[in-house]
Amino acid sequence: MAAHHFTPDHYFSTIGSHEPVLRIADGDTVVTTTIDAGGFDGTDQRAHPGGNPQTGPFYVEGAEQGDALAVRLDSITPNRRRGFSATVIAERVLDPDFVRGLPEQTLVDWDVDVAAGTVRLGDLVLPIAPMIGCFGVAPPRGQAISTGTSSTHGGNMDYRGHVAGVTVYFPVAVEGALFHIGDGHAVQGDGEIVGTGVEISMDVRFTVHVIKHTNIQWPRTENDDYIMALGNARPLDEALQYATTELVRWLAHDYGMDTRAASILLGQTIEYEIGNVFDPAYTVVAKLRKKWLPAAR
Amino acid sequence: MAAHHFTPDHYFSTIGSHEPVLRIADGDTVVTTTIDAGGFDGTDQRAHPGGNPQTGPFYVEGAEQGDALAVRLDSITPNRRRGFSATVIAERVLDPDFVRGLPEQTLVDWDVDVAAGTVRLGDLVLPIAPMIGCFGVAPPRGQAISTGTSSTHGGNMDYRGHVAGVTVYFPVAVEGALFHIGDGHAVQGDGEIVGTGVEISMDVRFTVHVIKHTNIQWPRTENDDYIMALGNARPLDEALQYATTELVRWLAHDYGMDTRAASILLGQTIEYEIGNVFDPAYTVVAKLRKKWLPAAR
Amino acid sequence: MAAHHFTPDHYFSTIGSHEPVLRIADGDTVVTTTIDAGGFDGTDQRAHPGGNPQTGPFYVEGAEQGDALAVRLDSITPNRRRGFSATVIAERVLDPDFVRGLPEQTLVDWDVDVAAGTVRLGDLVLPIAPMIGCFGVAPPRGQAISTGTSSTHGGNMDYRGHVAGVTVYFPVAVEGALFHIGDGHAVQGDGEIVGTGVEISMDVRFTVHVIKHTNIQWPRTENDDYIMALGNARPLDEALQYATTELVRWLAHDYGMDTRAASILLGQTIEYEIGNVFDPAYTVVAKLRKKWLPAAR
Amino acid sequence: MAAHHFTPDHYFSTIGSHEPVLRIADGDTVVTTTIDAGGFDGTDQRAHPGGNPQTGPFYVEGAEQGDALAVRLDSITPNRRRGFSATVIAERVLDPDFVRGLPEQTLVDWDVDVAAGTVRLGDLVLPIAPMIGCFGVAPPRGQAISTGTSSTHGGNMDYRGHVAGVTVYFPVAVEGALFHIGDGHAVQGDGEIVGTGVEISMDVRFTVHVIKHTNIQWPRTENDDYIMALGNARPLDEALQYATTELVRWLAHDYGMDTRAASILLGQTIEYEIGNVFDPAYTVVAKLRKKWLPAAR
Repeated sequence: MAAHHFTPDHYFSTIGSHEPVLRIADGDTVVTTTIDAGGFDGTDQRAHPGGNPQTGPFYVEGAEQGDALAVRLDSITPNRRRGFSATVIAERVLDPDFVRGLPEQTLVDWDVDVAAGTVRLGDLVLPIAPMIGCFGVAPPRGQAISTGTSSTHGGNMDYRGHVAGVTVYFPVAVEGALFHIGDGHAVQGDGEIVGTGVEISMDVRFTVHVIKHTNIQWPRTENDDYIMALGNARPLDEALQYATTELVRWLAHDYGMDTRAASILLGQTIEYEIGNVFDPAYTVVAKLRKKWLPAAR
Repeated sequence: MAAHHFTPDHYFSTIGSHEPVLRIADGDTVVTTTIDAGGFDGTDQRAHPGGNPQTGPFYVEGAEQGDALAVRLDSITPNRRRGFSATVIAERVLDPDFVRGLPEQTLVDWDVDVAAGTVRLGDLVLPIAPMIGCFGVAPPRGQAISTGTSSTHGGNMDYRGHVAGVTVYFPVAVEGALFHIGDGHAVQGDGEIVGTGVEISMDVRFTVHVIKHTNIQWPRTENDDYIMALGNARPLDEALQYATTELVRWLAHDYGMDTRAASILLGQTIEYEIGNVFDPAYTVVAKLRKKWLPAAR
Repeated sequence: MAAHHFTPDHYFSTIGSHEPVLRIADGDTVVTTTIDAGGFDGTDQRAHPGGNPQTGPFYVEGAEQGDALAVRLDSITPNRRRGFSATVIAERVLDPDFVRGLPEQTLVDWDVDVAAGTVRLGDLVLPIAPMIGCFGVAPPRGQAISTGTSSTHGGNMDYRGHVAGVTVYFPVAVEGALFHIGDGHAVQGDGEIVGTGVEISMDVRFTVHVIKHTNIQWPRTENDDYIMALGNARPLDEALQYATTELVRWLAHDYGMDTRAASILLGQTIEYEIGNVFDPAYTVVAKLRKKWLPAAR
Repeated sequence: MAAHHFTPDHYFSTIGSHEPVLRIADGDTVVTTTIDAGGFDGTDQRAHPGGNPQTGPFYVEGAEQGDALAVRLDSITPNRRRGFSATVIAERVLDPDFVRGLPEQTLVDWDVDVAAGTVRLGDLVLPIAPMIGCFGVAPPRGQAISTGTSSTHGGNMDYRGHVAGVTVYFPVAVEGALFHIGDGHAVQGDGEIVGTGVEISMDVRFTVHVIKHTNIQWPRTENDDYIMALGNARPLDEALQYATTELVRWLAHDYGMDTRAASILLGQTIEYEIGNVFDPAYTVVAKLRKKWLPAAR
C-alpha cells in the first residue's frame, strides 16, 4: 500500500499502450499533477500541446483483460489561480436554426480560489467543484484513442460527478491496465456545452485496486449514495442504451437481480445525468440510489 | 378567480382543437379528475380506450396565438389504490445486442397508499411522488396530435418534475389555448424506461394564467428553485438542442442576457434531466437554478 | 372502374379524418389537380395557405383497417411554367461548424417546360422528373398529422422515386382509407436538402385498389424493377430500421422467406435511397430488385 | 512511376503511424494482396486475427499534412474461391420491436467464381462486384484507430462503390501518409446490414498520387461519372452532414462555386448512398454527376 509521489515530465494526447511512467501495486496510492486541457501546468507554463494531455500511464501489477481497475479519486485540487473557459454554447448543442446568429467563440480567464471555495468571472461567483474530465485505461487491440473522445475504456467523459471521493471502475483490456489521467475542471455544468469547464491544472491523489473476474463492459462509478454506469457514444440515445444496459448487468452480477427484477426497480427509480454533449462521443450516466438495492431494503 | 368543479364524461386520445368542455377565465382554478393511461377511472372502471386519454379541453378566455398559457399544478393526488406498471425495460432503451434475451413484457399492479405516502410492489416500497405525464394545449394548423407523443404544444413528456407546485408554460397556438390533462403517475424513474410509471387515476387541481407577448416556443416549467425549458424530439440530441435553445431564449427575453452572457453562465451551471426515452418524441429538460439568475446575484 | 374528374375547391394542411370530397370504388381512377407547396394553383393564384396543402380526401369503398390501399400514379404533369425552389442547403443537413457562414435563405423561380422536358434556372438546365412529395391516408386514433411531416400513414416523404408509373401501398387505418395528395415537384435531388424541390402545381391521375389482409405497417412502393419499403422517422438510422424491417416483413408475407433467408439475400443486394432529410421525420427507402426475388430466380 | 510487387508478412488491426512496410514515390503502383476480414489469406490459412487486418502501411514520399493522397484502385480480384458472410441482419439495423425474434447469427460460405463472374450460395447467384471495405491513411495526433471503424482518415467505410477504377482521396495527417488497405468483399449490399459482405482475400493493384494544397477534410471518391464525398459518423444524420459539407467544400475549392450556387445545384441533383450502418461509425456518400459541374455545362 505504498504512496508514490510522481512528477510527470511528458504527457500523452491519446490513451493507449504507451510505455508506463510508473509501475504500482494493487492498493497503491499515487500523488501527482495534471496539466490543463490546453497543456499549461501549475506554473502556467506550456508543458504539452493542447487537447487534454494525460499524466501516465500507470502500470498496475496484476491487472489483466477481464478485470476491472478501481480508481478512487482521493483528492483533486486546482494548483494555480487561473482557469479558463469558452464563452459560446457549441453549435451542436443548439437548435440548428439558432446557430447562424451566434457570436464568435472566445476564451476567458476565471479566478479559481481554492481557499475561498469559489470560481469567479466578474460578478459571477460559483462554488468550486473540482472534477476530472478525462481519464481511463488503455483500450483493446492496440488502439490509441484521442483524449478528445471516450469509449468503453473511459476517456473524455466530462462528467461533473467525477469528484474527489468517488471510485471509478474501468474495464481492463491490456496487462497492467495502463491508467491515464488529466483534464481537470474547477467547475462544469452538465453537458460541457461551451466545450470546456473552467479548465485548470490539478494536484491529484488516487488509489487503485484490481477487481478480478467482473462482467464490466463500460466505466462504472460509485459514491456514498449511488451506483452509476456510463455509456459513451453518439447520439445520446446510444450512450443512454449502453449506460442503462451496463447498470442492468451490474445488478445481475453483483446483486443477483434478473432482468425483470432490475427492470421493475429501475423503471421507477433510475436517474440519468449527462456528461458531455460536446466531444465526438457523448456521455450518459445511469444512476441508482444504493438505498434501493436489494441488500439495503 | 373562480374555482370550477368539473366532472368529465368523455376523453380525447389526441390533443387538438376539440370542442371545449368548459370555458374559464384568466386566473381561474379547475378541480377535476383524470383517468389512467389505460383508460380506467377512480373506481377502476374503463372510461375510455387506453393511450393516455385526456380530460378537457379547457378554453381559457383571452388566450391567443403568441401568448403563453401558465398552468400551476395546485394538487395531484391519486384517487384509488391500484396503480400498474410494465416490467421490462423497453427494447429501444437497451444496447441492441442485449435485446434478444429479454423476457416478455407484462403488467403488474402496485399498491398506492396516499396516506402512508408509499407505492408498493412486494418488498419494494418507494415514496409516492405524483406527477402528470401528458398535458398541453392545442397545436397549430389544425393538427390533432396523439397523446402518445409530444412536441412544442407539450403532450406526453413524462417528466417526473411535473409535480404539484410547479407552473408550466405552454405556447398558445389557437384561440382559448384549449388545455388538456391526463396520464398521472404515482411515481416514475427518469426516462420512463419500462414505458410506464406507476399509472393511476388522479384528483387534480390547477390554476391558469394567460401571459401576453412572450417569445415562448417550447414548454417551460418553473418551481421554487429552477427555471426549466423542455425539448421534445428524437433523437435525444435534438430534444436537448431545443431545450437548451429555449432556455437561452428565456434568459434573453426575461433577463436581458445576450447569447454570450447566457453561454458563460449556462456553460458552468446548466443541469439536464431526461423526461422520457420511450415515446415517439423523447423529452429533455434544461434547468438553471434561480440563484444564478442576474437578479439573484 | 370509373374515371372521376374532380376539381378541388378546398384543401387540407393535415392528413386526417376530414370529410371526403369524393367516394370512389376499388379500381376507380381519379383525374384531378394539386396545388403547389406554397398553395398556388395552375393559374398561379393562391388557393390555400402554404405548407403542402392536399387535394382530397378520397373515400375508397371497401377499405378497412388492416388493408392496404394501392395507389398507382398514372400520370403527374406540371400544369404551369413557374416552379420555385429554395437556394441554401438547410442548416440541419450541414456540419454544424459550417452553418454560421451560410447566406440567407431565399426563393427563386425556375422555368418548367413540359414539352421540352426541362427545368431551367439561368444556365442550369435539368431534365424534368415530376414526382409527388406528400400523399397518404388518414392515420389511426383520430390524429390529424401536419402535411409538413410523415409517418406510417405516408405524408411528406419527398422521395424522388414517386414518379408516374409506380404503385404505392399505404396501411389503411380508417374506413374508406381517406387518400390525400399534393406537393408536386418538377425535379428534386435526394434528401430535398434545400427544403424544396422545384415546387409546382400538377395535373394528376391515379388509380386505387384495396388489398385485403396484408401485414403492411409502413408505406411500400413498387415499380417495374424494384419492391421498396419506406420508413419515416428521425434520426435517419431509425427511418432505415423501419424501412428494412418492413422489407423483411414483405418478403415473409408475400414471398415465404424466413428472416434468415431474407437476411442472406438482403445482406448482399439491398439498396437504400434517402427521401428527405429536411422534414420533422426523415425518409429512407429500402429497395430490392425484383430479379432477386425467389420467384424470379 | 515504378511498380512494386509487395508480399506482406504481417498485418495491422489499427490504422496508425506504424512502421512502413514499403516506401514508394508519387505516381508509383503497388501490386500486393489483402487477407480477408477474418484474417485468412489466399490459401485459406489464418495469417492474422480477425477484424479487417490491413496490408501496409505504405509510405508515400512527399506527402505531408494538408495534402490529399489519391489512390487509384487499378484492380481488385478475389484470389481464392471461398468467401463467407453472416446470415442475420444486425440488431441495430432493424426495428427494436423486431429484434427479440431474430434467429442466431451464423456464418456461411459462398462460392466466388471470378472466371464466371458470380458469387453463389445454393440457388442464389449474384454477379461478382469486388470492392474494398477498409482502407485509409494514418490519422492525426498519434491515434491508432481500429479497423472496425472509420473517421476522417478513411477506414472501414464498406462502401460498395469502392471498386476497381475509382480514385479515392484521403486527407494526409502525417508525413508519408501511411496508406493501409484490406477487407475485400466479392459483393455487398448497401449498408453491409448483416455485418459482412462476401468476405474474401484479394489480389490488389493501386497507384498513388500526392495532391498538394487541397482543402480536403473527409475522404473523397471519383469515378467516370461522379464526384463523391464520404462522411463517417453516427448517427447517419451526422455522416450525411459531413459528406454534404465536404461536397460543398469541393465545389467551392475546385469549381469556384459559392455556397448559394452549390446549394441550388445540389438541391435538385445530389444523390446519397449508404456505405455501412453496422460499424461504430456509419458511412454516407454524397454524390454529384460530373455532367452537372459548371465546366461540363
